[in-house]
Amino acid sequence: MAESNALPLVLLAEQFAKLPGIGMKSAQRLAYHVMSMSDNEAQAFADAILHAHKTVHTCKTCQNLTDKVICPICSDTGRDHSIICVVETPKDVTAFERTKEYKGVYHVLHGLISPIDGITPDKLKIKELLSRINNSEVSEVIMATNPTVEGEATAMYISKLLKPLDIKVTRLAFGIPIGGSLEYADEITLFKALENRNEI
Amino acid sequence: MAESNALPLVLLAEQFAKLPGIGMKSAQRLAYHVMSMSDNEAQAFADAILHAHKTVHTCKTCQNLTDKVICPICSDTGRDHSIICVVETPKDVTAFERTKEYKGVYHVLHGLISPIDGITPDKLKIKELLSRINNSEVSEVIMATNPTVEGEATAMYISKLLKPLDIKVTRLAFGIPIGGSLEYADEITLFKALENRNEI
Repeated sequence: MAESNALPLVLLAEQFAKLPGIGMKSAQRLAYHVMSMSDNEAQAFADAILHAHKTVHTCKTCQNLTDKVICPICSDTGRDHSIICVVETPKDVTAFERTKEYKGVYHVLHGLISPIDGITPDKLKIKELLSRINNSEVSEVIMATNPTVEGEATAMYISKLLKPLDIKVTRLAFGIPIGGSLEYADEITLFKALENRNEI
Repeated sequence: MAESNALPLVLLAEQFAKLPGIGMKSAQRLAYHVMSMSDNEAQAFADAILHAHKTVHTCKTCQNLTDKVICPICSDTGRDHSIICVVETPKDVTAFERTKEYKGVYHVLHGLISPIDGITPDKLKIKELLSRINNSEVSEVIMATNPTVEGEATAMYISKLLKPLDIKVTRLAFGIPIGGSLEYADEITLFKALENRNEI
């Protein structure tokens, strides 16, 4: 921000610019917006940041973000606790919940194996997944990581760990997205769709 | 945000979603990002909001945002205080300062006359501009509001007020933007460029 601006405004804009997907220009606009808030609104905004940061932590069971000791999904007795859907981030849990179809529970890894970024398996919530499987009756583990190199590697790594435990390990289906067009599908997606074809 | 999320996270996302240009999806992403901050980072972010909101106010002279009584531009004796560039918002001051060419001072109206939105001239910092002109030696007032209906109306309104004071009132030049193409210029811009042609 140009030096024509007040320093606290510049500092606030710099804070906004640290957020993902917010450039310096948007950050300035957001900082100006804070100036137009009422005292109460600015206080509520700052409080929401501190309150969320202080009270939200990972669920003891599934590692999803929650402000309870055990998250609402893990403490819901109406769900099937023998099926665990393993995902990368809490955002993925939200995505699956939006489908309103999945009735099992989740396990959030908080990342994917990526040696190049220094993310080794011990940095993920994999041992928590194993101890959970050892301490409860689990019939199926669905590997629901993204179809990327890291997502595939993580799914493979965990499925190998689970092999000796004699638990059904499944992987999400990958193929042509609904509403998508064959014409515009890339080769790998098309190959996957062909490879995983189902009888009708 | 789906109910699978912790309430404080939902509340934080709602705060982000109130900001201009941030939809609910981005707001969720930003809220998740706050979770990944360190305690110090979250505190610094919240503090920056409150500090900027508390200490930044309008400059007594030019009405630009500042944390001083008189902003750095108005207190800069190296600038030409007899030329006042009248703009709509503090952002416009930043834009002009980026050119590094303008050496006069500014006056921020904090809006444009727009009866349809209930913004009448008395809601803008126009009387502050008049008292400023009455109390100091001003040779020129540059009307630098946007070339919109409201911007033009405001420029016209103020220039009429200044007529009796025998002060030179000028308006920004409007025409083909540098790097722009005649082929793609709209008719009004082209007409303005023709009307305001200069001898070379």
